[in-house]
Amino acid sequence: MSSSIDPALFDENSRTAPAEANRLLLKIGELSTETGGTLSDVTVAYETWGEFRGDNAILVCHALSGDSHAVGWWDRLVGPGKAIDTTKYFVICSNVLGGCQGTTGPSSLHPDGKPYGSRFPIITIGDMVEVQGRLLSALGVPKLFCVAGGSMGGMQALEWSVRFPERVQKVFTTASAAKHSAMQIGFNEVGRQAIMRDPKWNNGDYPLNDPPSNGLSVARMLGHLTFLSESAFESKFSRRLQGKSLPDYHLGVEFEVESYLSYQGDKFTKRFDANTQLVLTRALDYFEWKDVARANADFLCVSYTSDWIYPTGQSLEIERLAKSAGKRVQRVEIDLPYGHDAFLLDGELQGDLLRSFLAE
Amino acid sequence: MSSSIDPALFDENSRTAPAEANRLLLKIGELSTETGGTLSDVTVAYETWGEFRGDNAILVCHALSGDSHAVGWWDRLVGPGKAIDTTKYFVICSNVLGGCQGTTGPSSLHPDGKPYGSRFPIITIGDMVEVQGRLLSALGVPKLFCVAGGSMGGMQALEWSVRFPERVQKVFTTASAAKHSAMQIGFNEVGRQAIMRDPKWNNGDYPLNDPPSNGLSVARMLGHLTFLSESAFESKFSRRLQGKSLPDYHLGVEFEVESYLSYQGDKFTKRFDANTQLVLTRALDYFEWKDVARANADFLCVSYTSDWIYPTGQSLEIERLAKSAGKRVQRVEIDLPYGHDAFLLDGELQGDLLRSFLAE
Repeated sequence: MSSSIDPALFDENSRTAPAEANRLLLKIGELSTETGGTLSDVTVAYETWGEFRGDNAILVCHALSGDSHAVGWWDRLVGPGKAIDTTKYFVICSNVLGGCQGTTGPSSLHPDGKPYGSRFPIITIGDMVEVQGRLLSALGVPKLFCVAGGSMGGMQALEWSVRFPERVQKVFTTASAAKHSAMQIGFNEVGRQAIMRDPKWNNGDYPLNDPPSNGLSVARMLGHLTFLSESAFESKFSRRLQGKSLPDYHLGVEFEVESYLSYQGDKFTKRFDANTQLVLTRALDYFEWKDVARANADFLCVSYTSDWIYPTGQSLEIERLAKSAGKRVQRVEIDLPYGHDAFLLDGELQGDLLRSFLAE
Repeated sequence: MSSSIDPALFDENSRTAPAEANRLLLKIGELSTETGGTLSDVTVAYETWGEFRGDNAILVCHALSGDSHAVGWWDRLVGPGKAIDTTKYFVICSNVLGGCQGTTGPSSLHPDGKPYGSRFPIITIGDMVEVQGRLLSALGVPKLFCVAGGSMGGMQALEWSVRFPERVQKVFTTASAAKHSAMQIGFNEVGRQAIMRDPKWNNGDYPLNDPPSNGLSVARMLGHLTFLSESAFESKFSRRLQGKSLPDYHLGVEFEVESYLSYQGDKFTKRFDANTQLVLTRALDYFEWKDVARANADFLCVSYTSDWIYPTGQSLEIERLAKSAGKRVQRVEIDLPYGHDAFLLDGELQGDLLRSFLAE
């Protein structure tokens, strides 16, 4: 296993977007996945903020469509003076294994020079965490003060607690689950079917400049339906028509909400890979937080009243599993109307909870 | 307008399915739609049960994927001895305008011998009701004792109350709404995008033997996600794998819920037309129950606790609109765990309410 850090090895797109400007790449060598696959040469894209002082490292784990730029997508919680205070903590965030923002994923080039495509193995949340563990070892961070994440990021945080129990002191999850429900698997599956039934998907082997954008766009629109609550959709769009006072009676855009969904879906295809969507949603669906007795961490677990796709019942399950295993756990349900997106939008309420949790 | 009834004119598929065996067809001539379109020669497929005695007619209106065979899809409520008792009432049910079960729709043949396809106009719930009104006139039924329907059928029932106020005495809606929310429009739109982004859709002009089945299948899977509640998904499927005890770690079927959704999606493509899905969901999204003061009917309005896609708040709105207009309205929320499907599955509780409502 190679673990050399080369801060000069920037992403080739580093000048095009702030999220990529400070991204570092680290080669961590070969990985055998929990699913029986092998990746011969894994690269991890990551960013860090603050200074490491031995006991102040916080790993931030991103959700499905996130990246290593935690001060971007989680700027309500991560930054100078924020709950995850970059003037106080050494904060690390890496793009997950299987992703498409610098870390090895299906759109990365195989040693043979072509994208992995269908050759990329199915992976698990455990495989993502294994890669993060190697990254931290390479960075000289033996132990984490805290690992924090929302949604898929929360699952990685839970997995950290049992895979590396001696390396984690505190675990913060928000809008997450110990395992997906049948309905969550169903939503993911319909998105996958939209991609896999797009003729351009071609069993996963498509040119990177001609991907199955229609399928991915539909999958992302479906995602956006689950990110907001009914009341958030109402207050954002209600039944307003898009730039007109009377409908045109056609199949094009009539309502604002239609314009929003198409815009979100199509925008997503410009920055995200369809196979990554398949591989990461599979990992989400397989995940189950097990062997909780192994954990040595304290837990803070947040949910939102209006989050119908990761409802509070799933945080109750995290609490129940942690308590049954004799762990210390605080669980708080926050009343905000933003739906699942609340975990990204709410700096204040979960920020205060997280601040207290880290100060304990 | 032609209004001749020809009971001998059976659907050509009449021998293949019970639902089609007793279907009658009536030509009602030209229709100008509310959207500015024209259909030169509209046929209505319908069925009746019981005997007409002047004041005992009940029109049953079907939901998105239904047909004229009310004793099939609504057998918990319609039949001998059921709440809509076919030994007591003269019950009529017709396939809606725009449908694909006998009534003129996008897959019907245009006078030029080819399917309407993209030439079929966008329609409204009002257009559907207009066609039903003509059917009843042709059948010699000037007034309805009751009009009843769930989901899209409930919208037709509400529309009847204001479009033909002198022809309706009682209105029964279940799992329905006075208008779609932004989120409901969003769900419909994602399904439409799945169809319209299928290359085989071809702007609506596809051969009937080579339709955009992948897009329609994804749209239907998405529909099924909304028909059940989270708890219904859990009790039906939980996280059980499909015929195995360990996952195979591939993109094929792993979980039972995935198998169920794909089965439902693909089965649907064998009996339903993709353009009908587009046209009917558009009609749903445009609908708003207006001019309620015109109505002369009494209302019974049922909703289900676990129906998250047509939640009780929408029945509260029907009640509020009816009360504000000085109408008599009863509203009942029934506590059952089946989700939106409850309106099809619950014969007992809503059956008792409907029985009392009809006996008043």
